[in-house]
Amino acid sequence: MAAVDTTGNILVTGANRGIGLELIKQLAVKMGGEAHIYACCREPEGPGAEALREVATKCPGKITIIKLDVADEDSMSTAARTVSEKIAAGGLNLLINNAAINKPASPAPLSATTKKDMMDVYETNVVGPHDANILVSLCVPGNKMSCRRAAIINLSTMVSSIEKCPETFSTAQMYPYRTSKAALNMLTRCQALDFKNHNILVAAIHPGWVLTRSLSSRAPLGCGGTGDFHHGCAADKSAATV
Amino acid sequence: MAAVDTTGNILVTGANRGIGLELIKQLAVKMGGEAHIYACCREPEGPGAEALREVATKCPGKITIIKLDVADEDSMSTAARTVSEKIAAGGLNLLINNAAINKPASPAPLSATTKKDMMDVYETNVVGPHDANILVSLCVPGNKMSCRRAAIINLSTMVSSIEKCPETFSTAQMYPYRTSKAALNMLTRCQALDFKNHNILVAAIHPGWVLTRSLSSRAPLGCGGTGDFHHGCAADKSAATV
Repeated sequence: MAAVDTTGNILVTGANRGIGLELIKQLAVKMGGEAHIYACCREPEGPGAEALREVATKCPGKITIIKLDVADEDSMSTAARTVSEKIAAGGLNLLINNAAINKPASPAPLSATTKKDMMDVYETNVVGPHDANILVSLCVPGNKMSCRRAAIINLSTMVSSIEKCPETFSTAQMYPYRTSKAALNMLTRCQALDFKNHNILVAAIHPGWVLTRSLSSRAPLGCGGTGDFHHGCAADKSAATV
Repeated sequence: MAAVDTTGNILVTGANRGIGLELIKQLAVKMGGEAHIYACCREPEGPGAEALREVATKCPGKITIIKLDVADEDSMSTAARTVSEKIAAGGLNLLINNAAINKPASPAPLSATTKKDMMDVYETNVVGPHDANILVSLCVPGNKMSCRRAAIINLSTMVSSIEKCPETFSTAQMYPYRTSKAALNMLTRCQALDFKNHNILVAAIHPGWVLTRSLSSRAPLGCGGTGDFHHGCAADKSAATV
């Protein structure tokens, strides 16, 4: 990870495992000053957040763990209120919409994909970042010449690319995941245009093909935790920033 | 509409108004022989299907109206059973996934778009065509050299294009509709790759910017009925056929 501007407030969803956890680890090491990380996950007290709690303990004063289920509107409102009170006038400088799910758990053909799979995956992967608009209100409207310009990062993936679909489809059909991530790219594009007036940068990024729970045998990049399914190369380039 | 192969069974969803109704009218005029149209809509007996019933009456023996709500799995199964019994060994030659909704009714900013809007629009516009897989089983596996090759057409739109988003976003943000149609393009791409082995052609098409209930003042193309919101130019070209 490149050098990070070390002053500001950062919020990461899905922070208890996989790419989210690794982001927290690296940000905690590389940030300093008054910067603070809000690490969000569904069950901060549960066994699935043990690694995150360990990281927070090792970095006293740097990380606050926040309970957040991005598929639950009430949870989103509560988390936004909590973060708002904590950051006070400081504002949010970076929002990383990382939380995502993949159903069915293993790549399945169309015939084995249910309506519930389609709806659940869309709810978390697209409507979650959509509803995170409530967090965007906490973002600091930036000055274009300032490194304090606020940014929203939506975690995309190679398999969101319609153009590149033939390269991977035969080995991993993943209808719910692919359709949701293509929709996320569109959401990103819309947000980028929308928030331009507020000088908030919005981008979809590809984390690379990362060693996570679902792709441990083939991923070239290691990741500190086991976790959410994520692999990526270039998302459609049209989902880039403004 | 260009000349249509006049032998086969055609199923159109959302057939009671807008582009769906116009498709039925033109297909009814241009098809002949043993071809038959299955015109699907949510309430065949309701006032919203009056125009469709009139078309069916004027074309005796050519059109069967089928009750189908694409957002209802049971309705989809029942419709598939009904059509299957009627076409018997003939098979389905063309499936047009036209049914779509737009919420909120008028183009709204992100702040006025609810989670329910996002979920409802995705359910009809993407999960509907996904669940129509049950109808695909009725399709006739084609011979590449034959004009009887079965096809699935998913109705897309210009506003599904991530690349072209900046051209229209300021006048019509439509987060739920845009994200759903981007996802539909991905679904189309997946289905095209998936069904290639069965020699079934799958394509997303843009109907043009059509005079419908929602865009009556600006659309350059007239359409026989009032109806669903649909306007389109080029969907991302990557959502094309195999």
